[in-house]
Amino acid sequence: MSTLPLQPVRWEGDASHGSLMLIDQTALPATVLTLRMDSLAALCEAIATLRVRGAPAIGLAGAYGVVLAMQAHAMDTPECFATALRDAANQLAAVRPTARNLAWAVRRVEAHGLQCATASALESLNALLAEARNVENENASMCSSMSRHGAALLRADEGILTHCNAGPLATGGQGSALGVILEAHAWGLRPRVYADETRPLLQGARLTAFELDRAGIPVTVLCDSAAATLMARGMVQRVLVGADRIAANGDTANKIGTYALAVLARTHHIPFHVVAPSSTFDLELADGCGIPIEERNGDEVRTIAGQRCTPEGIAVFNPAFDVTPAVLITSIICERGVITPVAEDTIRRTLAPAS
Amino acid sequence: MSTLPLQPVRWEGDASHGSLMLIDQTALPATVLTLRMDSLAALCEAIATLRVRGAPAIGLAGAYGVVLAMQAHAMDTPECFATALRDAANQLAAVRPTARNLAWAVRRVEAHGLQCATASALESLNALLAEARNVENENASMCSSMSRHGAALLRADEGILTHCNAGPLATGGQGSALGVILEAHAWGLRPRVYADETRPLLQGARLTAFELDRAGIPVTVLCDSAAATLMARGMVQRVLVGADRIAANGDTANKIGTYALAVLARTHHIPFHVVAPSSTFDLELADGCGIPIEERNGDEVRTIAGQRCTPEGIAVFNPAFDVTPAVLITSIICERGVITPVAEDTIRRTLAPAS
Repeated sequence: MSTLPLQPVRWEGDASHGSLMLIDQTALPATVLTLRMDSLAALCEAIATLRVRGAPAIGLAGAYGVVLAMQAHAMDTPECFATALRDAANQLAAVRPTARNLAWAVRRVEAHGLQCATASALESLNALLAEARNVENENASMCSSMSRHGAALLRADEGILTHCNAGPLATGGQGSALGVILEAHAWGLRPRVYADETRPLLQGARLTAFELDRAGIPVTVLCDSAAATLMARGMVQRVLVGADRIAANGDTANKIGTYALAVLARTHHIPFHVVAPSSTFDLELADGCGIPIEERNGDEVRTIAGQRCTPEGIAVFNPAFDVTPAVLITSIICERGVITPVAEDTIRRTLAPAS
Repeated sequence: MSTLPLQPVRWEGDASHGSLMLIDQTALPATVLTLRMDSLAALCEAIATLRVRGAPAIGLAGAYGVVLAMQAHAMDTPECFATALRDAANQLAAVRPTARNLAWAVRRVEAHGLQCATASALESLNALLAEARNVENENASMCSSMSRHGAALLRADEGILTHCNAGPLATGGQGSALGVILEAHAWGLRPRVYADETRPLLQGARLTAFELDRAGIPVTVLCDSAAATLMARGMVQRVLVGADRIAANGDTANKIGTYALAVLARTHHIPFHVVAPSSTFDLELADGCGIPIEERNGDEVRTIAGQRCTPEGIAVFNPAFDVTPAVLITSIICERGVITPVAEDTIRRTLAPAS
């Protein structure tokens, strides 16, 4: 098996006849299965069921999804094309509410298409693909920059705890939190990683362990509830996680369980870092209270590997994300640099367009 | 289906020909399967694989296990009987290292048998059974007392978070943490329970949800990592857990994940109570550093419902218990009363024999 990172989202071919290909992340690590999306509905299903997941990766899937949805409209009048484009973008942006990057990327490609309103539909379609490719390239470049900024903070031989998956599969680039670790490994810093399994969907056990193992980085999987013991025993020197949405004050939504890790890291005097590109920030939200938290189907908790583990019909609380207050975050590492202390002024200063 | 609590450990018949029956808790909630233990080896396997689990319940299984092991020695000389008794007790006490109650109950029955050294082996065997029955009766009575002491602390309509299973299945009586909840329910206090699923072996999702649902108490299951969000949203007013071993200063070993809950409860200003009988205290240990923590097979984490979820051969960190420092525990509720503040002097005073 190749040890190159898997590319979670890929566009093959031109705008009119090209295809959107996804790696089915629900089949990993047992099977590397590539799916061709043959409709907008299929893509929405793939995003909703986490066949593609990770905030930057679903942003990328959404960007190319706009192109996919508009292939059927290549002969439309400009007006009809614009109407269909708005519909498709609305549909895609709404599939998962928490991650900022999905709506961000979809709206960006949509806006680019609407700017070309006087062009032919085919020209607009080409413009959509060009913009989606821009999202992909910027994504990759932001991952590389974040990874370097983050790796510069690490010492040699650190034990690093991570949660969920924030690697190439989650981003389409080098990764956010795992990007830092892959970079540190390439620099010879010998990071040792502890990966929370991340119930209910086990992205840590299935995906993070898979990506780090392929890259030759030592990785140990643990139940989410064992992280506190790791910290109490002095086995980790740092926590690195990704993010799904960051409010203007630095409050950060990420996979359920992240907030508990941040509280525990503070209690044990362990630095806690969020690694995320600028496309994950939502500066229109003053703080984390405004971040919509997706609550998912309770069957994700009631059943495991298709087998029911609770009594029939039991009630379940299954939020997919939680919000970590800025005060618990040592720094946010983004492609523009390291934001610390985490507060509205430092965030706005770092994200402001270069003058 | 009856709504009476299931009895996890039961001795049927007399000492010479009687049988030790266990409910196979690994088959719950799908199947209520009762197993007859036909040898000491079978019982040791059942304890090691958590067919019977919960500190007081494995103490009870150990107590009757001594009788089971000695049935083959009913015709021995007193000397041979004593030697075999010591061997059996050593074997049983060592099956699981963390829970205090296993060694406590086994050594108690053993000591009782060794006191009868001049009696016939058959008389000694009868004495062993009588002492094991004493353990069972005292266990039930301690559970009832703890439950009443605990219920007296609760207000009406509280949301209560619990972890793992500390109910009838874990104790052979009314339960420790769940005993308090069952008592409060009987008193009309309308407790609403949130049950952590408790990875890796899901005692919360499988057993706590099952016991509370049968008792007609509202219960909601959640992933362990979602407990912090429950607390942040003000959905729980109290945390109640059992214990496997409590050191002289109050440091408490319990199922992995308990320590994280205690840290989170403190952060959110939520009372955190340990409910455990005096047989769980180990006053020879000054503090939690001396409590042996069982590390279990990594396959409990690598596989779920028989399916592998991590890459092949991945390293796993799988401690079965953690230690919560006394300073994070609001009170310890035992059959003698409520110990608060939790410290060596209050513990020794409460546990001292009545003068």
